[in-house]
Amino acid sequence: MAEDHAVKFFGVTGSPFVCRVKIALELKGVEYKFFEEDLKNKSELLLKYNPVHKKVPVLVHNEKPIAESLVILEYIDETWKSGYPILPAEPYDRALARFWSKFIDDKVIPSVWKAAWTLGDQKEREKGIEESYEALQILENELKDKKFFGGDKFGFVDIAAVFVAFWVPIVQEVVGLKLLSGEKFPKLDNWIQEFTNLPVVKESLPPKEPLVAFFKARLQSLAAAK
Amino acid sequence: MAEDHAVKFFGVTGSPFVCRVKIALELKGVEYKFFEEDLKNKSELLLKYNPVHKKVPVLVHNEKPIAESLVILEYIDETWKSGYPILPAEPYDRALARFWSKFIDDKVIPSVWKAAWTLGDQKEREKGIEESYEALQILENELKDKKFFGGDKFGFVDIAAVFVAFWVPIVQEVVGLKLLSGEKFPKLDNWIQEFTNLPVVKESLPPKEPLVAFFKARLQSLAAAK
Repeated sequence: MAEDHAVKFFGVTGSPFVCRVKIALELKGVEYKFFEEDLKNKSELLLKYNPVHKKVPVLVHNEKPIAESLVILEYIDETWKSGYPILPAEPYDRALARFWSKFIDDKVIPSVWKAAWTLGDQKEREKGIEESYEALQILENELKDKKFFGGDKFGFVDIAAVFVAFWVPIVQEVVGLKLLSGEKFPKLDNWIQEFTNLPVVKESLPPKEPLVAFFKARLQSLAAAK
Repeated sequence: MAEDHAVKFFGVTGSPFVCRVKIALELKGVEYKFFEEDLKNKSELLLKYNPVHKKVPVLVHNEKPIAESLVILEYIDETWKSGYPILPAEPYDRALARFWSKFIDDKVIPSVWKAAWTLGDQKEREKGIEESYEALQILENELKDKKFFGGDKFGFVDIAAVFVAFWVPIVQEVVGLKLLSGEKFPKLDNWIQEFTNLPVVKESLPPKEPLVAFFKARLQSLAAAK
C-alpha cells in the first residue's frame, strides 16, 4: 500500500513504550521509517510532532502525528484493519483489554520503577517492592489458565505488558532485586516464555546487552549521587 | 431494549469521573440503576465488581463489570452504537480524542489537585499552580476556534473535561485560588459556558451546594492537620 511509506516512527530502541509500537507495526506489516531519537538532544521533528509531552514514541502517518503508545496501538489497529487484530472484536473484551493495559501503565510500571531506582530512600524502595509484588500478583491472577492475556491469541494487553516480559527481568538483575521469578509467579513466567518466543516479538525486542549497560550506568550514577 | 435494564452503575454523585459516565449514559438514552456508594464504607458489590482498584465509577452490564471512566465511555459508545456518537468516526480523530482525554487525566487533574490540596507545603502548592496554568494553557490552545474540543459537536474530550468545566471553578473558589478565569483563558471560559449549557450536561452535573460543603470540610480538615 502506498500509504505505508508515509509512516514515520520516532523512538529510542531501549524503550518499552517504543517497543509496543514496533511490535504492532511489524504485526500489521506496515512499512515505516524509524527515527532514533537522542533524548538528551531531542530532534526538531520530535518537538514539532509531540509538543505537549516531547516524548517518544510518536507515530506520524501522512504527516499527522500521534503520541502515547496505547493510543498509537489503537490507531494502528483501526487504520490497518485487515492485518492481525490487536484488540479483540467484542466491546466487553475490548474494555477489558483497555483496563488491563491501563493497569500496567498506572500500577505495574511505576511500582517496579520505584523499587528499582530509589536507591537513596530505603522506605520508598520497600514500598516499591511491596507494590510491585501486589501489581504482579494481580497480573498473575488475571492470566488464569490462559496462554496469553487475550486468551489463545496474543494482543493488546500482551503487547502493553512487554515491559514485564523483557524489561523487568533485566532491570531486576542489574539492581539486584528479585521482583519476578518463576517460583513466585509461575503463570507470568510461562507467559514470558510464550510471548517472547513469538517471532514478531523476538524480532522487535531491543538487543539485551546495550540495555544492561544503560541500566548499569544509571545505577552507578544514582549510587554516586546518593 | 431489554438489555438496558441490565445496566447497574456504581458511583458517588460528587465525582467528576462518575459524572463522565452519567453524561454518556444519558446521552445514549441507556436505562440504568444508580448505586450511590459510601467511599468510607464501600459496598460488597463495589468490592466484587472492582476488586483491583475498589473505586468508582463501575458500570455493570449483564453482570459484567467495567471500571475506569474512559474505558467505560468507550464501552458505552461501542455497545449502544445507534445513539449519539461519543467518539469521532475517523481513526485519526479517535486517536486525538484519546490523547487529549489522557492528557486531562495525567496532567490537568493532578496539577489542579496539587495546587488545591497541598496546604502544608507552599513549594508543592506553587508547583501545582504553575503546572495547572501550563496544562490549562495547553487545553486553551487546543480549543483553537472550535466550539467544543471535538469541533462543532461535543464528544469524548468534552465529557472527559467535565472536571475543568464544573469542578475547577468550585474547587478554586473554596480554596481561594484563581487557576481558571475568563481573562486568562477566554476560550476555555467560553467552552465552559457552551458545554455546561447543553441540556444533557446540565442534567448530569451534581448539585453545587453539597459539593462546595464537601470541599470546605476537606479544606478545614487539611488546615487542622497542618
